[in-house]
Amino acid sequence: MKKLFFPNIYLALIHHPVINKNGETIASAVTNLDLHDISRAGKTYGVKAFYVATPLKDQKELVERIVEHWTKGTGATYNPVRKEALKLISVKESFNNVLSEIEKIEGISPKIVVTSAKKRLNSIDFSGFRKKLKEGAPHLLLFGTAWGLAREIIAQADYTLSPIMGNADYNHLSVRSAVAIILDRIIGYEDH
Amino acid sequence: MKKLFFPNIYLALIHHPVINKNGETIASAVTNLDLHDISRAGKTYGVKAFYVATPLKDQKELVERIVEHWTKGTGATYNPVRKEALKLISVKESFNNVLSEIEKIEGISPKIVVTSAKKRLNSIDFSGFRKKLKEGAPHLLLFGTAWGLAREIIAQADYTLSPIMGNADYNHLSVRSAVAIILDRIIGYEDH
Repeated sequence: MKKLFFPNIYLALIHHPVINKNGETIASAVTNLDLHDISRAGKTYGVKAFYVATPLKDQKELVERIVEHWTKGTGATYNPVRKEALKLISVKESFNNVLSEIEKIEGISPKIVVTSAKKRLNSIDFSGFRKKLKEGAPHLLLFGTAWGLAREIIAQADYTLSPIMGNADYNHLSVRSAVAIILDRIIGYEDH
Repeated sequence: MKKLFFPNIYLALIHHPVINKNGETIASAVTNLDLHDISRAGKTYGVKAFYVATPLKDQKELVERIVEHWTKGTGATYNPVRKEALKLISVKESFNNVLSEIEKIEGISPKIVVTSAKKRLNSIDFSGFRKKLKEGAPHLLLFGTAWGLAREIIAQADYTLSPIMGNADYNHLSVRSAVAIILDRIIGYEDH
């Protein structure tokens, strides 16, 4: 029987540096539904904050406008439940800014965990990650947009989480679906 | 240890009849990312087909155009992996048309399972649903858009699946996230 627990976990969705289809480093555009879906999943599984990292001025403003609409604007009155989720979002210039924000809150650096379709030396599986979280140290779980996180970000990770496999030879989930499944696997407490 | 298995399961996303915020029956608009995210999750977990039910002519055409772009158009060449997922999609006029299509394929009616935030008499939990699937009979898992499936659809269900709970007093996931987590819980084979 799995036990209910409350991990010290942060999420970040990285829009730069990520790679495109050809392996080149780019800054990707923000997707509105990433903000909604990931913050709602984050709220469901007790995540402490959800950082959206982008260096692009117009994209930062876009995220801030969306968050403001749902947390303070007419969206907040129309759908108060959505407000609770969107309140988790903070926009940051870069991955380093996310890190220093968490260091300020926690007083120490979080352990960094990245998701990747490839098996790596510092791989950790879902039950291993769950065990680490139960020890109570702060963890930052990173997700990439476009074709994934750039190598320089992956190089800074303490752990690389195993890829999600279903029952088919296909693992090309959206980042929104991947976040939902990973949070459920590492934090969910229902047996099934 | 969970075992790998291949269930006989179909998904349908219902756009009518669903309810709005005030409990009135409406036909909702199709969301592009529902098509992508749910078909990709369906492909990951070996779902046999993903039906998108809407009676609205312009919405049916929209879905058909999107599916054609990714399965036959330039999208298919740009991203062949996406093509494999979107091929699961069929547009249907109504829930009844989805049912008769599955009856044609399977020779019998599928068991109908709905998701709901409320506990009901015919409730089934995730491990109970997994057991049913292992027996091999065809199952149709229904998801509602907007504020959820109308009562007349829920009344036709053989089972109502337990709501997804994380570790917080908040269960307001997007339908995209809910589909991903449910498929992982009932079909996924990794222990965590």
